[in-house]
Amino acid sequence: MTPPEPPLLLALDLTGTFVFGLNGALTAVRAARLDIVGVLALAVITALGGGITRDVLIGAVPPAAFSDWRYLALALGGGLVAFALSRRLERLETPIVVLDAVGLSVFAVIGAAKAFEFGLGIGPAILLGVITAVGGGTIRDTLVRQIPSVLHSDLYAIPALLAAALTAAAVRTGTYGLPTALGAAAICFAVRMIGVRFRLNAPGPPGGDHPDDHPASPRDDDQDDG
Amino acid sequence: MTPPEPPLLLALDLTGTFVFGLNGALTAVRAARLDIVGVLALAVITALGGGITRDVLIGAVPPAAFSDWRYLALALGGGLVAFALSRRLERLETPIVVLDAVGLSVFAVIGAAKAFEFGLGIGPAILLGVITAVGGGTIRDTLVRQIPSVLHSDLYAIPALLAAALTAAAVRTGTYGLPTALGAAAICFAVRMIGVRFRLNAPGPPGGDHPDDHPASPRDDDQDDG
Amino acid sequence: MTPPEPPLLLALDLTGTFVFGLNGALTAVRAARLDIVGVLALAVITALGGGITRDVLIGAVPPAAFSDWRYLALALGGGLVAFALSRRLERLETPIVVLDAVGLSVFAVIGAAKAFEFGLGIGPAILLGVITAVGGGTIRDTLVRQIPSVLHSDLYAIPALLAAALTAAAVRTGTYGLPTALGAAAICFAVRMIGVRFRLNAPGPPGGDHPDDHPASPRDDDQDDG
Repeated sequence: MTPPEPPLLLALDLTGTFVFGLNGALTAVRAARLDIVGVLALAVITALGGGITRDVLIGAVPPAAFSDWRYLALALGGGLVAFALSRRLERLETPIVVLDAVGLSVFAVIGAAKAFEFGLGIGPAILLGVITAVGGGTIRDTLVRQIPSVLHSDLYAIPALLAAALTAAAVRTGTYGLPTALGAAAICFAVRMIGVRFRLNAPGPPGGDHPDDHPASPRDDDQDDG
Repeated sequence: MTPPEPPLLLALDLTGTFVFGLNGALTAVRAARLDIVGVLALAVITALGGGITRDVLIGAVPPAAFSDWRYLALALGGGLVAFALSRRLERLETPIVVLDAVGLSVFAVIGAAKAFEFGLGIGPAILLGVITAVGGGTIRDTLVRQIPSVLHSDLYAIPALLAAALTAAAVRTGTYGLPTALGAAAICFAVRMIGVRFRLNAPGPPGGDHPDDHPASPRDDDQDDG
Repeated sequence: MTPPEPPLLLALDLTGTFVFGLNGALTAVRAARLDIVGVLALAVITALGGGITRDVLIGAVPPAAFSDWRYLALALGGGLVAFALSRRLERLETPIVVLDAVGLSVFAVIGAAKAFEFGLGIGPAILLGVITAVGGGTIRDTLVRQIPSVLHSDLYAIPALLAAALTAAAVRTGTYGLPTALGAAAICFAVRMIGVRFRLNAPGPPGGDHPDDHPASPRDDDQDDG
């Protein structure tokens, strides 16, 4: 139905995998000071968890992450880089957030497109795009006992939802291709970056209580001076 | 093997989905004061998590929750209602518990019956009934960092087990149909309500320590001098 | 591709299931003082979770744990024994650790071999061996809100990785059979026991911070000041 992934999308997919591996490993180092096994495990889980969940749900087993060795290699590579450079990378907050947004955007688009390939409808395809984008990070957060950022963070799921919805629209109107895929990813990326820049949050329940004061906020004031 | 779901059972299944969505969203509002994305995410996970897990385990992919849009719509609908009315619903403890018991009962029956349709044996079918009934709530609790209620709550898994076992007996004796399905669900519902009313718990390990005093404390200061 | 499991391996697989059930139930009793439902649920999850995850990922559904009743029976049996004897077993630390290492070793070998049977490559097969070995315990730890021991414990994942890698080497060189399978398991067992005996840990991230002082340490009193 959808054409095979063009090289640029594949390149972005692999980039997203590497970046999520990096990101997962850094989380491991910061949140729980794990040893190298734990760091690499979290890197792989973060990078591959979303895509594996999607593939299991649509019946594409064994998941692409297992049948194409590059995914596992890049996830491990990202984890190793983060492990080796963890001291230095902790100061590079901005590039990490930016690269994480790249992964989020690409995974949302590719996830939704792949769900269409396997015959799912619009609603499920959008949902699977979001799952692909946020699934790995959610499993990671659960394992290190943080409330998953998708549940509370400033505009994290919404840009992914947007990218997946735009992808669905493109597939259904027969205009899915490299330009529209990149466009959807770019919009997701821009919204995510705006959210980060202005610390925007989705609205909380009506009645005055702010969603901010959730006790488990993983990002308050972690003054870890190394 | 089993006949297609009769309309009443389907109606109950959809009702259970809506109610679990409501319930999951309320948990999100109470337990972690999440924003609307988090609330809807937990609603969908609670409502669809058990059935999706069952479908993945029996090889029925993509799961029914993805191929029939009504499930997703009702889960989101329940979540939206709970989000909008969260202030008011917090006072309506009883209806929530009752509706949750309806979902638990229906899901246990339907889950076990569907496992038989896919050729599983009695033991696994019963287990899958229970997984369908308690799976969504268990994932929800894990994500908001509570010990899943199935592990400690007053008579939660046992009524589901009972309903699934009765369903298995009905299927195996060739008497599965609307009356027996409703009967099994009704018994589950009654046992669950009795458990709630009298705060009954399954027995703890022998030796005097009561399972009650764990609110979720995984080991702080339980000075059991065992 | 690989021959059917020889009786001894099957016997070890079933032994591992029983032991992991025992182990999961004891964790439940210790960590969260659950009632019998919670104890048995954790026993089953610990014993069957790794193999079920593997089977779902390689597309072997319904999982072996559902199609062969002995797995479920042994997992429940282990849970019941642990529940009944929990007082006495708490003192038998050593046999539990030893039997847990047996399960770890056997599951890693069998998991990797089964992944090959389903046509996966070397990297994924090794990964699936590790997932089979540590998956159940990881789900268990997450449910009772501990950081999974695979992420931080002294040499837990590494021996499993070793056993899976040796199994992969044996399959690829056409020498996989009972002797090599047992050899791989024995090496895993020995490494795990050495790790336990000398409290060895995999290295932490470079820069002086010890992985020990991870804040989330679920069992604090290990005063190893590195």
